[in-house]
Amino acid sequence: MKNFADRLISEIDKKGSSICVGLDPRLSQIPGFIVEKYLEEHGATFAAAGGAILEFNKGIIEAVKDLVPCVKPQIAFYEQYGIEGLKAFQETCSYAKKAGLIVIVDAKRNDIGSTAEAYANAFLGKVDVFGKEQSVFNADALTVNGYLGFDGIKPFAEACKKYEKGIFVLIKTSNPSSGDLQDRTVDGNYTLYEMFGHLLESWGADEIGEKGYSSIGAVVGATYSEQAKKLRKIMPNTIFLVPGYGAQGGDASDIKPCYNEDGYGAIVNSSRGIIFAYEGSKKFKPEDYKEAAREATLDMKKDLKSVEVK
Amino acid sequence: MKNFADRLISEIDKKGSSICVGLDPRLSQIPGFIVEKYLEEHGATFAAAGGAILEFNKGIIEAVKDLVPCVKPQIAFYEQYGIEGLKAFQETCSYAKKAGLIVIVDAKRNDIGSTAEAYANAFLGKVDVFGKEQSVFNADALTVNGYLGFDGIKPFAEACKKYEKGIFVLIKTSNPSSGDLQDRTVDGNYTLYEMFGHLLESWGADEIGEKGYSSIGAVVGATYSEQAKKLRKIMPNTIFLVPGYGAQGGDASDIKPCYNEDGYGAIVNSSRGIIFAYEGSKKFKPEDYKEAAREATLDMKKDLKSVEVK
Repeated sequence: MKNFADRLISEIDKKGSSICVGLDPRLSQIPGFIVEKYLEEHGATFAAAGGAILEFNKGIIEAVKDLVPCVKPQIAFYEQYGIEGLKAFQETCSYAKKAGLIVIVDAKRNDIGSTAEAYANAFLGKVDVFGKEQSVFNADALTVNGYLGFDGIKPFAEACKKYEKGIFVLIKTSNPSSGDLQDRTVDGNYTLYEMFGHLLESWGADEIGEKGYSSIGAVVGATYSEQAKKLRKIMPNTIFLVPGYGAQGGDASDIKPCYNEDGYGAIVNSSRGIIFAYEGSKKFKPEDYKEAAREATLDMKKDLKSVEVK
Repeated sequence: MKNFADRLISEIDKKGSSICVGLDPRLSQIPGFIVEKYLEEHGATFAAAGGAILEFNKGIIEAVKDLVPCVKPQIAFYEQYGIEGLKAFQETCSYAKKAGLIVIVDAKRNDIGSTAEAYANAFLGKVDVFGKEQSVFNADALTVNGYLGFDGIKPFAEACKKYEKGIFVLIKTSNPSSGDLQDRTVDGNYTLYEMFGHLLESWGADEIGEKGYSSIGAVVGATYSEQAKKLRKIMPNTIFLVPGYGAQGGDASDIKPCYNEDGYGAIVNSSRGIIFAYEGSKKFKPEDYKEAAREATLDMKKDLKSVEVK
């Protein structure tokens, strides 16, 4: 059975890279020449914000589309500009897909039963609109928070099966206080993140594709290398989405344990380090933000090559 | 210092009720006379879905606004209809606020740093749009998933302080598999939900209002009465948002432990049991869905009176 992981691996092979570019547009960091255009047209409105974000994103997508297999828009950066921001989000997803990129929506959605189904409809599947099935945001994969247990995973996993999509469930996150819950020793044996890793691997066991990976992936932060090593052993059939490279402090050596011996098993995200690479650069002006993003991606590609096993 | 909890308690007193009405519109359950109107106008489109949802919600809000202190739209049911669904969500929030209701958005958002700030901007605070501060969804409170630890709570807590808003953090959820993570014994002492309850109570200690309650609340499911009893002791200054009453199987006696001895400390949510009360009723036709919702609310009010301590 072919699944999302097979599609992802095929794109990793095609692009020769396991980089994911995070599309986290911060209005204050979008080059002035873009912002001014929309300010002039719409004034200081949500519509101007949405327009500037979308144009900026399109530029980044064009700059990196032949270098990386996937992009990861973080929906909070769009949601904060309301309906107009979410329009820019929807058009960004659609533009990236047309550019041949796999779209992983970082929304960390979580709920149970029919509510979780509604989220799965919105991001991965289709929704019934008076008897007509329609796609909404139509991403390829979605990040999910699993604090609610299996009830909170199952509706998403079912959508993955039905629509050949994927999810990445938060296991060990990259932030400093991730240990508040995740590092607690549970049942006298191991940590919560290890226990949850075991659980997730078993939940994904029925969803393994032709290349040996499940459509149910895990989020494992680049900033916790030792923990990633343990999780790699616990979860051999699970693809890790790895945030925390670059701006958050993780480097290539931190990421090495996230890969399996077959050279697969990890997708490494960089957001600010790529999309705003023009900032503080002597070589690139704001007008050259695309070239700066492309160079930063090539640098990251080189950096990761030193640790990708294959 | 007056905070969100003070506002909530003042509304509970005014309405003589601690009921929260869940606005979880399912298109297939909205009365035909509403649906047909929008189908005729827009065809089987997202616009028709959004229009029908908004009209239905307005009816429910009018029917219950003098009986209950708050409503809780669950955003997934709107997000699944894309931009048009989210427009209906935004207008529902705004309509409910104008009707004098406190709006608790059930979105279970979660992230860290600037991403969590962006969510807090979207739902609780304001966002900077080219130097102009603007409200987006402008809810009064938001549900939050705390798996990421304190980093994932702090940006929301700061927005609560700045804008006199509240959050409800998932501690013990109402679903059957909530124990997969939440009931594990941590650090050899107590369960994860108890440990997290202690943590949350301490994180909220600086945010206590005049009535003794923090602006940082907790989600505690009605279906786990014994666990609620333990949490009530661990978290004396925390307001519980209690889902699971009615359709999910919780009854009044299950909810009793969620209240403090002062008669406050809990907000009990019912969604389907109120908004779709007309279904399967002999007394009410679909055209009378508002009257049916009102009667169901009055019944619930009577039921809760038997266990509310004051």
